[in-house]
Amino acid sequence: MDLQYPLELVGTFVFAISGALAVRDLEHDVFGAGFTGFITAIGGGSLRDMLLGSYPLVWIGDVYFLYAIFAGVFIAFIFPKMMLKLRRTMFLFDTLGIGFFTILGVEKALSLGVRPEIAAIMGMFSAVMGGVFRDTLTNEIPILFRKEIYASACLAGAILYLILNYFGLERDYNMLISISVIISIRLIAVKYKLSLPRLD
Amino acid sequence: MDLQYPLELVGTFVFAISGALAVRDLEHDVFGAGFTGFITAIGGGSLRDMLLGSYPLVWIGDVYFLYAIFAGVFIAFIFPKMMLKLRRTMFLFDTLGIGFFTILGVEKALSLGVRPEIAAIMGMFSAVMGGVFRDTLTNEIPILFRKEIYASACLAGAILYLILNYFGLERDYNMLISISVIISIRLIAVKYKLSLPRLD
Amino acid sequence: MDLQYPLELVGTFVFAISGALAVRDLEHDVFGAGFTGFITAIGGGSLRDMLLGSYPLVWIGDVYFLYAIFAGVFIAFIFPKMMLKLRRTMFLFDTLGIGFFTILGVEKALSLGVRPEIAAIMGMFSAVMGGVFRDTLTNEIPILFRKEIYASACLAGAILYLILNYFGLERDYNMLISISVIISIRLIAVKYKLSLPRLD
Repeated sequence: MDLQYPLELVGTFVFAISGALAVRDLEHDVFGAGFTGFITAIGGGSLRDMLLGSYPLVWIGDVYFLYAIFAGVFIAFIFPKMMLKLRRTMFLFDTLGIGFFTILGVEKALSLGVRPEIAAIMGMFSAVMGGVFRDTLTNEIPILFRKEIYASACLAGAILYLILNYFGLERDYNMLISISVIISIRLIAVKYKLSLPRLD
Repeated sequence: MDLQYPLELVGTFVFAISGALAVRDLEHDVFGAGFTGFITAIGGGSLRDMLLGSYPLVWIGDVYFLYAIFAGVFIAFIFPKMMLKLRRTMFLFDTLGIGFFTILGVEKALSLGVRPEIAAIMGMFSAVMGGVFRDTLTNEIPILFRKEIYASACLAGAILYLILNYFGLERDYNMLISISVIISIRLIAVKYKLSLPRLD
Repeated sequence: MDLQYPLELVGTFVFAISGALAVRDLEHDVFGAGFTGFITAIGGGSLRDMLLGSYPLVWIGDVYFLYAIFAGVFIAFIFPKMMLKLRRTMFLFDTLGIGFFTILGVEKALSLGVRPEIAAIMGMFSAVMGGVFRDTLTNEIPILFRKEIYASACLAGAILYLILNYFGLERDYNMLISISVIISIRLIAVKYKLSLPRLD
């Protein structure tokens, strides 16, 4: 799939924009916003690779990821109002991003020889932990503890990918289906304000 | 000591239950609770191994740890009220857990060839950092900054183990003594509300 | 430069003092203060080395760093009032520390073969992430999101070092200039309450 690499860069770019804009309300300066964009974009994949002992980390070994982040932060700097008006668009990009990064994370973990159970967790971590680090740094309640379904959609899609993979479905179809399922769950959950049951 | 491996699994199971229940008051959904249970159970050992560069991480190399966590989270899900009534029991289990994980962490660090000073810190990290990550994620004051003696009991037990080890005490006795000391310090500190002096 | 190693130890010592004292207002006990001093002193360098996969971590491979931390925490314990009266002195030490650690971090990253863009980030991480971990653990707004220029001074100095290095400036002069620039930016920013522009 020749689209994978450019899509990864686009996903990194979008995560950097959303991370940089996430802190606007806190009145951070441009450096703080850039730093947050950076952590959001690289956090999930870096944690995955550090847990798996896979070096060099993606953004350290391939400088184009860094450029994608710089570009995203730069866009957030010079067009903050436009980006915020595009909140709906950004939400869509973020949703595409978590779908895509989940499945790429699963595949990377599998390629390093771990069991499917571990690969599912690594896929979810790739997609959501950058946002969790962002929220922890800015003293927000981490996104995965908020109401609407988020990380659980990623985990569900990761498990689906692994099941379809086990039954031999061809990779490109499997990616398409699993990513679509993550995106659909997330969109439906946000539209209809669906959340998982609580413990009580 | 053939009991070591099953005890490690039991400790992981108990940490997962206590982590999942820790967030109940925050009204997290089942996914958030499961995630918190997971982080609590694997956080300390994972940090220890990542600091020491020891790969694969325990729960990535041995899937039974993951199953122990799933079982703990599942129990917390289906019997939350019973588990909370068992708060006293859970506290005892947590106390057993930190005693046990401290000494196992010390031994693992020593086996990787680090100096005793480092091994003591690694032992304490193994026991308490999962809880610290849990508290950071849920925006709580980390457990090691609260009043009653907690991490310092682990550090004291770790140092004791290293001293007795230096003087050649046989391992099984040493484990038994050092773990008992950690547990005793913790139980006495909570019962009599003992805390360390403050800086002033 | 024979001064490098002793200066690193002194920097670690100073970071440990400032970390231990940082939590006084939160009424932590001596253990909590010591823990915070420890995290402040080792956090930045440890993150840098874990991101780069460079093992053993400095303080794990060389026990004198641990002793420098113990000494710093000990000083903070027995002379807390004197240390707080020395707040101005401590601020100066901290400022020297971030200047020095930034450039050492850049050099270490370069020596591991990464690109200059990565080295600049690693230099900044070395200097500021210990403080960020400290602030996250103690539920403070991380220092790099506060008003006065801090991490951005480190990043500026790191980039300057890399540029001068590219043009072949001799290392000792380069270190001296780059560290001085970091220190000057920080001192001027605090004195005149300068901050970077915000996004709006």
